[in-house]
Amino acid sequence: MKNILLLGGYGFLGTNILKYLDECCGNTFRVIVFDKFAQHPADLLFDCVTKTYVGDFSDDVLINRLFDDNPIDFVIHAISTTVPTSSFNARYDIESNLIPTINLINSMLQHGVKDIVYLSSGGAIYGNTSIVRHQEEENVFPISSYGVVKLAIEKYLMQYSELYGLRPLVVRLSNPYGPYHYSMKQGVCNVAMSFALSGNSFNVWGDGKAEKDYIYVCDFTEILFKLIDKKIHSQVINIGSGQIATVNDILERIKKMVPEFHWYYSDASRYDVSHFELDTSKLLSIIGDFHFTNLIDGLEKTYAWQLSALEAGQNPQSS
Amino acid sequence: MKNILLLGGYGFLGTNILKYLDECCGNTFRVIVFDKFAQHPADLLFDCVTKTYVGDFSDDVLINRLFDDNPIDFVIHAISTTVPTSSFNARYDIESNLIPTINLINSMLQHGVKDIVYLSSGGAIYGNTSIVRHQEEENVFPISSYGVVKLAIEKYLMQYSELYGLRPLVVRLSNPYGPYHYSMKQGVCNVAMSFALSGNSFNVWGDGKAEKDYIYVCDFTEILFKLIDKKIHSQVINIGSGQIATVNDILERIKKMVPEFHWYYSDASRYDVSHFELDTSKLLSIIGDFHFTNLIDGLEKTYAWQLSALEAGQNPQSS
Repeated sequence: MKNILLLGGYGFLGTNILKYLDECCGNTFRVIVFDKFAQHPADLLFDCVTKTYVGDFSDDVLINRLFDDNPIDFVIHAISTTVPTSSFNARYDIESNLIPTINLINSMLQHGVKDIVYLSSGGAIYGNTSIVRHQEEENVFPISSYGVVKLAIEKYLMQYSELYGLRPLVVRLSNPYGPYHYSMKQGVCNVAMSFALSGNSFNVWGDGKAEKDYIYVCDFTEILFKLIDKKIHSQVINIGSGQIATVNDILERIKKMVPEFHWYYSDASRYDVSHFELDTSKLLSIIGDFHFTNLIDGLEKTYAWQLSALEAGQNPQSS
Repeated sequence: MKNILLLGGYGFLGTNILKYLDECCGNTFRVIVFDKFAQHPADLLFDCVTKTYVGDFSDDVLINRLFDDNPIDFVIHAISTTVPTSSFNARYDIESNLIPTINLINSMLQHGVKDIVYLSSGGAIYGNTSIVRHQEEENVFPISSYGVVKLAIEKYLMQYSELYGLRPLVVRLSNPYGPYHYSMKQGVCNVAMSFALSGNSFNVWGDGKAEKDYIYVCDFTEILFKLIDKKIHSQVINIGSGQIATVNDILERIKKMVPEFHWYYSDASRYDVSHFELDTSKLLSIIGDFHFTNLIDGLEKTYAWQLSALEAGQNPQSS
């Protein structure tokens, strides 16, 4: 039995991690959730969750108390207080993401907790370069404040590893989509699907031709726990599916499910990248062959979830 | 006539910039100094300085007022509130260096000031890799909090360039030494020389065999204004001399000037790099051939300054 502290447990990735633990891990893990919500926003319950702490990630006294009050074996850090378009308030990004992460690491070390998984972002970190497939060791050019802060956190984690024996696993994720997604702020697959189901017209930033890697979130959670199981640490690892598509491809696919869906185009976001693909050789050399859900199947499963959530009155994409 | 805001004007690099402007630039530049000291710590006066503001770099109201009250053409940012061994207080580093720099950039943009020179550090940024000669475009592995913060500042500057038309010139400097150095915290050439002159034994961290690039500070100031003159911006540029030496080489050379000088060795600093050399092809392609002061001449000139400063009662290395 391992005790996990899951920061951001009721967000999109956090919820999927909890679902994965409930469905696939028996009683191997007990989870303490830290989140800005006292309970899951769609009132979901999880067998693995033993306690939920509600608060602000900047509250370093509370974060420290989590470690005082609970035995914790490892931390999964899935909090981000901002989204990739956050460059207009770099200071807020630093104060609400970077500094609290430093405090978190210090609390961990004070309590002898060495293992932390940090969910970083491929798109935000690598930026817009001429490189087609991004490798973990290349130089990076983040194009948003969100990306600079994630890079700084990655660098600090590796430094604490070198200096204080922290064991950080940094995963740079491509674009996850799938069930338990309740945000309208990012994640084009889910957000567009939500527009389609509500009968609203969807605004595409740019021409919809940007090519990106999309990963079904259940593939991500499975891979994540393979890496945790193999005790991989002090490394940065890309997690992508190799399923490259344009936004237009995705919209067309949604239209097959919701024929009345329509969309329009406006100016390209200055924060977006035009082509984004992750080199996953490092990942595959660790976990071996992995059968990724193809995009069509993944979108259909997501659609099925979104319908069932609507029927259950969960109002996906409400926050 | 150009108006410069020089942040950290009374530090080692700042003072040398002021001396260079007084001696080599006629009346081309007028300088407003911002520093934590109300006047130069050795009571030096500079013709080019029209006003000195004293304060804390974190005081964003004061920083903003500098731009309200003065016409400023460009900013030279030579402030660092910490030294490379600052990893024990990452939060302080972020709060006292990174956030104030973000506020500075915002104040600049609000006042239509686009040009900023940022003095970064080669040693702190590149870190300890197997690479022998570091190029500006390679991936970097800072080994101190000081380095992570400098990297984050560099990335933000380039992002503000892309998004808001800021024109940042980032220079990654090797190890400068020379006159007007009053700190005991870093700079092995000057600090060791000060120990030699005071008759104290000098503590070498490590075995003294680490090879590094040392640059005479007057070469640096001359190069800096060549880059400014050529209006180079939105680039990162290494500034090194190609004068590679070990700490032991430097100590032996000082012993030639002060025969009674002695030193001893203690544990290697965990923050230091074992070999450090900058690839300066980019720099030289911009400024053309440059006659760098060789290390022996540079150390002799530094020694002459240190003696004259002692005679004048300036007590070098007192802070």
